[in-house]
Amino acid sequence: MAQTTPNHTQTVPGWAAMDSSGKMHPFVFKRRENGVDDVTIKILYCGMCHSDIHYAKNEWGISVYPLVPGHEITGIVTQVGSNVGKFKVGDRVGVGFMAASCLTCEFCEDDQEQYCEQMQSNCSSVFWDGSITYGGYSRMMVANNRYVVHIPDSLPLDSAAPLLCAGISVFGPMKQHNMMEVPGKKLGVVGLGGLGHIAVKFGKAFGLHVTVISTSPSKEREAREVLGADNFLLSTNSEHMKEGIRTLDYIIDTVSANHSLGPMLMLLKVRGILTIVGAPEKPMELPSFPLIFGNRTVSGSIIGGMRRPRR
Amino acid sequence: MAQTTPNHTQTVPGWAAMDSSGKMHPFVFKRRENGVDDVTIKILYCGMCHSDIHYAKNEWGISVYPLVPGHEITGIVTQVGSNVGKFKVGDRVGVGFMAASCLTCEFCEDDQEQYCEQMQSNCSSVFWDGSITYGGYSRMMVANNRYVVHIPDSLPLDSAAPLLCAGISVFGPMKQHNMMEVPGKKLGVVGLGGLGHIAVKFGKAFGLHVTVISTSPSKEREAREVLGADNFLLSTNSEHMKEGIRTLDYIIDTVSANHSLGPMLMLLKVRGILTIVGAPEKPMELPSFPLIFGNRTVSGSIIGGMRRPRR
Repeated sequence: MAQTTPNHTQTVPGWAAMDSSGKMHPFVFKRRENGVDDVTIKILYCGMCHSDIHYAKNEWGISVYPLVPGHEITGIVTQVGSNVGKFKVGDRVGVGFMAASCLTCEFCEDDQEQYCEQMQSNCSSVFWDGSITYGGYSRMMVANNRYVVHIPDSLPLDSAAPLLCAGISVFGPMKQHNMMEVPGKKLGVVGLGGLGHIAVKFGKAFGLHVTVISTSPSKEREAREVLGADNFLLSTNSEHMKEGIRTLDYIIDTVSANHSLGPMLMLLKVRGILTIVGAPEKPMELPSFPLIFGNRTVSGSIIGGMRRPRR
Repeated sequence: MAQTTPNHTQTVPGWAAMDSSGKMHPFVFKRRENGVDDVTIKILYCGMCHSDIHYAKNEWGISVYPLVPGHEITGIVTQVGSNVGKFKVGDRVGVGFMAASCLTCEFCEDDQEQYCEQMQSNCSSVFWDGSITYGGYSRMMVANNRYVVHIPDSLPLDSAAPLLCAGISVFGPMKQHNMMEVPGKKLGVVGLGGLGHIAVKFGKAFGLHVTVISTSPSKEREAREVLGADNFLLSTNSEHMKEGIRTLDYIIDTVSANHSLGPMLMLLKVRGILTIVGAPEKPMELPSFPLIFGNRTVSGSIIGGMRRPRR
């Protein structure tokens, strides 16, 4: 059964993985009472992130069952703790990956809590009170207000949900590596899943030339016609990949499956930057030649801090 | 036999690998006449770089036999072409990895010839005239003056030789990533071979705190006592590696053997930079977690341009 602490008194229905089979089951569990720094949220939408699948199937080896996934959460505030000034009942809000962090390290002080060594997620992690966290595949949640954001009225709560993890995960490296500073720079997006489709939309919105790189020919139409990508490279087509050599300034690699970085690095210009935002469970292959002969960079990034992505 | 072109009239004794066995044999071959842009150099010293071993054994799959290695060359100018203004007979000079490049691309124009797509090395490459290049394991060479540098009188020619490849290869990333700008930054050097020992000496000379990371306990004394390293981590010792987590600002990874980058990345602080300057023949293992959860960077770099490393 779910681990609880004495003040976990609120009964919540949700969905949980009971083991690594990948099957989800109805699951009723307890959440804590709303504390002085907490807000309680009636959950209306929750995105599905590949990390949820990694968690459900214990592909990272860190899952605790029963496991309630979900960390792209939107809903309405139903209760507010006495220390909380920035939210009121009825507010439209979102919660992403983070449930807790140490609050005192240099990263927490810099609003970059995602790099705090004590950062805990909203699923299968240990909250400050010792309880195991349960995610957004459930009717309601109690969240420390630090990790909650307002959703503007102009943004529908369903389409806002994926921004809480997929969105910030691709916006983070765009900001960090100044991808938007010079209009017309060429961005490659590897993989057209949850993160990939947002990366394409952001890229186009920020004035970049966007190329989608995928193993699936069937993604070309979606990439070009639905998302507005400028180009499409089928990574299994050696002619495509040869034509693409040294053409891109940046790549955002969103693929969560194991793959070699060599062919992607070859697409980058000299001094190009490839950012890893997926989390394959096995190590990726990194050949040295395309890295050293192109003075290229592979950088990693995960979600973003609560105030803004770092510049 | 050696491939030659009609004006390759100068007979030169040297040492060559005849096959991938790794054995070297005495070998007499021809070099071109000294052209208008060339200098002829009496070779006095030539460093031994791990790349020479990769080349000799065809570990990169690009070797052409007979193969004369050697690209850390120092000696005395014995002949100067009519277009050459910056050298005269008797000058003390050095030649590194590069024999030719396209001269017109953005990298050649920016003195970053090492990233020119047509860059040819001094060994097993194709020179402008179509001949195969032979390296410095020989009595003399003819080199285009663009790829030749002066050696100051204060620098002995024997100890200057390794600077032509190993030296510039580790200085390049130090400069590119601003490692010397703030004194006292913490640099890790992985591997204590040709490049590693120079990285330690440069690091100390530039005021960095230097940690050597090695699989060989026997290297500790050399690292600390001979080269002046501040710290030594035995990478096979899990306690050492645990103590080192998040302690380094930069790592220069000089290892030419296959290895996982995961344990090295863990030693870096958040946003730390690991630079690959070795060239293992098989892909390295790059686990995503230490990369993404630390916003860390793996960057590649090779030798340097003829004027100066890029900032």
